[in-house]
Amino acid sequence: MTMQLYDLSGTDDLRFSPPCWRTKLALAHKELEAETIPCRFTEIPEKVAFANHKTVPVLVDRGEAVPDSWRIANYLEDAYADRPSLFGGEAGRGVARFVDSWAQGVLLGAIAKVVIDDVFDCVHPDDKAYFKETREKRLGAFDELAAQREQNLAQLQTVLTPLKLTLKAQPYISGETPLYPDITVFGTFLWPHCTSEAEPLFGDDDALLAWWNRMMDLYGGLGRKANRRAA
Amino acid sequence: MTMQLYDLSGTDDLRFSPPCWRTKLALAHKELEAETIPCRFTEIPEKVAFANHKTVPVLVDRGEAVPDSWRIANYLEDAYADRPSLFGGEAGRGVARFVDSWAQGVLLGAIAKVVIDDVFDCVHPDDKAYFKETREKRLGAFDELAAQREQNLAQLQTVLTPLKLTLKAQPYISGETPLYPDITVFGTFLWPHCTSEAEPLFGDDDALLAWWNRMMDLYGGLGRKANRRAA
Repeated sequence: MTMQLYDLSGTDDLRFSPPCWRTKLALAHKELEAETIPCRFTEIPEKVAFANHKTVPVLVDRGEAVPDSWRIANYLEDAYADRPSLFGGEAGRGVARFVDSWAQGVLLGAIAKVVIDDVFDCVHPDDKAYFKETREKRLGAFDELAAQREQNLAQLQTVLTPLKLTLKAQPYISGETPLYPDITVFGTFLWPHCTSEAEPLFGDDDALLAWWNRMMDLYGGLGRKANRRAA
Repeated sequence: MTMQLYDLSGTDDLRFSPPCWRTKLALAHKELEAETIPCRFTEIPEKVAFANHKTVPVLVDRGEAVPDSWRIANYLEDAYADRPSLFGGEAGRGVARFVDSWAQGVLLGAIAKVVIDDVFDCVHPDDKAYFKETREKRLGAFDELAAQREQNLAQLQTVLTPLKLTLKAQPYISGETPLYPDITVFGTFLWPHCTSEAEPLFGDDDALLAWWNRMMDLYGGLGRKANRRAA
């Protein structure tokens, strides 16, 4: 039976959630397919209540519901051990969590401060009030963030320091081949890619741009095929 | 023949350099010993000129000079492949570079902004002018940094986000056992440990403190034995 993936959906059914992208990329890395079930923000609690969880992604496989992109990656790694590895061993899995924590805990917020206005445009009309209230609590007022976009973009370049240093030295965050650390960071950048014309937000960093293009080519061009906001 | 390690030396022969600590910890992880050769800042260029390099650490093993803590770690991993692994495989090695880049490119600067005045106290009198000039160029005026110590300490807590998230979930950055990612971050924190009474700088993060204590116990308590500034 095909897996099912509960996936965030915005206006025009845009799919831009970073954690959901991580799961879609992880599935592709494992050469697995899932039927996606679109959920608007305010529909999520009801739609994934069966999984005892309040956020997407939730993956349903063989009757088992697995929430949270990190837990899903670990589930896939163990349940499909014969498929291409997401972590390249236990050390790789351990350190991948640091990169995942950086992507979710640092990078995402720094990107949000640059593009949150654009993301807001892509949120479904019925979800806008919810999105504005919850995100302004975390990030600050959208109009103030928009007014400081240039400073926030400069700040993002500083946040990108470890990524730039790493990719100046090697083709992927994981070394010679892409693994989950690349997926979690790339999935984060697909968020502004789908929602904003400001991307790819890298300044003039050639190594980072080259990595971005390599990641775009992976998995049959999954990232390139992502629907983006209408111009 | 015993290896030789060119190691930064401060006043009272304090050894506090983060990159040199990384190498000393990596040697201990590999169960290898090196005789250290103390170098004050302004002596370094002359003392390690033979290695075509301008900074320490420089490791000399079997007639070969290897500079730079990251290159030394890789040298040790390959030359002493039968000893305990620093990376736990190629994926671990790849992602370790990201953590190393974060430690050196982000964490170090954030710590510096809190304790640079204390570090300055520990610099050898003959090196003080050199240290002040080069570090103020990077970080800003020492007295201004000291005046903003509280804000800089708060900023450091934000910088520590990915580390705190990781260690809340697992005992080491590398997962269940400590590897080079743990060493590169721990070596960075030994810098304020040796030079400042403000450490360990973690706020009230229990998971990070527990990791710190575990790291202090490793390698026969190598970190605990470090000489610290006189009270």
